[in-house]
Amino acid sequence: MKHLIHAIVVLSCILHFTLAGAQATDPLPSWNDGPTKVSILAFVQAVTDAKSPDFVAVPERIATFDNDGTLWVEQPMYAQMAFAIERVRILAPRHPEWTSQEPFQSVLKGELLPVFEGGEKALLQLLMASHAGSTTVDFERAVAAWIADTKAPRWSRPYTDLVYQPMLELLAYLRANEFKTYIVSGGVVEFMRPWAEKAYGIPPEQVIGSSIQTEFQMRGGKPVLVRMPEIEFITDKGGKPVAINSHIGRRPIAAFGNSDSDLEMLQWTTAGSGRRLGLLVHHTDAEREYAYDRTSKIGSLETALEAAPANGWVVADMKQDWKVIFPFDKK
Amino acid sequence: MKHLIHAIVVLSCILHFTLAGAQATDPLPSWNDGPTKVSILAFVQAVTDAKSPDFVAVPERIATFDNDGTLWVEQPMYAQMAFAIERVRILAPRHPEWTSQEPFQSVLKGELLPVFEGGEKALLQLLMASHAGSTTVDFERAVAAWIADTKAPRWSRPYTDLVYQPMLELLAYLRANEFKTYIVSGGVVEFMRPWAEKAYGIPPEQVIGSSIQTEFQMRGGKPVLVRMPEIEFITDKGGKPVAINSHIGRRPIAAFGNSDSDLEMLQWTTAGSGRRLGLLVHHTDAEREYAYDRTSKIGSLETALEAAPANGWVVADMKQDWKVIFPFDKK
Repeated sequence: MKHLIHAIVVLSCILHFTLAGAQATDPLPSWNDGPTKVSILAFVQAVTDAKSPDFVAVPERIATFDNDGTLWVEQPMYAQMAFAIERVRILAPRHPEWTSQEPFQSVLKGELLPVFEGGEKALLQLLMASHAGSTTVDFERAVAAWIADTKAPRWSRPYTDLVYQPMLELLAYLRANEFKTYIVSGGVVEFMRPWAEKAYGIPPEQVIGSSIQTEFQMRGGKPVLVRMPEIEFITDKGGKPVAINSHIGRRPIAAFGNSDSDLEMLQWTTAGSGRRLGLLVHHTDAEREYAYDRTSKIGSLETALEAAPANGWVVADMKQDWKVIFPFDKK
Repeated sequence: MKHLIHAIVVLSCILHFTLAGAQATDPLPSWNDGPTKVSILAFVQAVTDAKSPDFVAVPERIATFDNDGTLWVEQPMYAQMAFAIERVRILAPRHPEWTSQEPFQSVLKGELLPVFEGGEKALLQLLMASHAGSTTVDFERAVAAWIADTKAPRWSRPYTDLVYQPMLELLAYLRANEFKTYIVSGGVVEFMRPWAEKAYGIPPEQVIGSSIQTEFQMRGGKPVLVRMPEIEFITDKGGKPVAINSHIGRRPIAAFGNSDSDLEMLQWTTAGSGRRLGLLVHHTDAEREYAYDRTSKIGSLETALEAAPANGWVVADMKQDWKVIFPFDKK
């Protein structure tokens, strides 16, 4: 009798939630109808339908996303660049030597070109040098405070408001289909983790990024992890598949990027056997966001864009494919 | 009306499964009743009861386990040492230079003391040097084939049979209480991932271990990750909390080890605020498994054992606390 009741309840639960699922509305309402949206829907349908030849078991449903320019705005400068510059200014009084030491000297004078041109590495070095000796806990607190208090100039809104609504829907849609969603960004991992869960629903253990070395120490009888002035790993270009292998240990079946830094991640992902999805976000909307590709100092997109057709990668055109850009654009 | 039916079905589902849970039998049947078992049960009860002052939200329920000697047998030598030795013998004909080159020369002569004494680092170097230039995919295939075909001498069984039944129950019990379970081992990560999911229910992305550097390359138009002859990171001692921070980005609330290599992981875990659990498996059963601690060349346990009482760490005595050691011991 107990087993019978159990079976009936379980069946009615399954039935109920299956019907509820079938009634669901468009999972990607901020994507205009068209080939880009169809490509995404068809891919997810194919890999999640148990009867499809392209079916992929749940544990293998790994999707990796670049962050800057793919999930949120990266122009006119990376948010973490604004953070790094502010940190250098705040910490400068304690470091009189910085007025004659690069890259601090330039930053304190407001000359940012060397930092721009140095890319992720220059940024990592700036954050590394300015925070050497502090603990990981202190650094995360500084990030959390900055992200809560700072507004991006063009929109006068917190940076975490400048996430892309269509990509939030895509993340949620993949997770509803039992994908595990990861960030794999050239950005500093400890800059992203304190807010990624709230902004994207991606927990710290699914955020992969560039890192500096840390060291275990006992301070006053308490164990701490101390930031060292040495780069550990830069998760950029070929470093992305390397970091995916190191952290996840499986090849993703879908990868999303927006610049040449994502080329190798898309190559690695879509070279796997079975059905795969590679997608590039192409910034084509100067009015609602920014328009840039080949010649941009930040988020340059050239080789990957040219490689897209031959590799079957989808190119999402922000202007054409996205109804709205930001959550606050929604009516 | 639709909402009402939905509410009724959801409520009956919740009620049904809650009652089913309350009727559950002992989650740790292979643990003898006593203070060790009580400590584990009380901890899990306290952090999962929403009314408890020690309640921990699901995303923060992270538990980390050492592997060798904590989840499976590590005596008389680590399984990966047996693997490394066999690989050197298999690959030797292609490397005539090894007959006069250390550590290969010793290994080929059957002199294993240098490898024993060099610990995880010597093993990593052996695997690294013998497989430089091969791809990650090829290496994983070699591991999978070896683990399927090789028997551990004392029991004439595959190494994956030599996992500890009480620890399998503990892993399952924690997961049933919505913990995320991780391996954090000094062992080589790519040696563990191919079989950890089947043996322990721990997916590759939750296996953290020592690593060598890999490099993204295109070979014949196909992207591959190639193993380089450079150590990337050794997840031993202070390296354990460092790797936890790097991979998980949260401090665990429970940590399980068996040797001084796990000291810092237990310190880091139990120094966090709120209720924590640190547990050491003490090998005290020479008849059913092995008895060793302070003077053992493998899995030496001295400092951590002495630190246990002051830190409130639980010491599981294999002889006294475990009804059976292996799954095949079960009646």
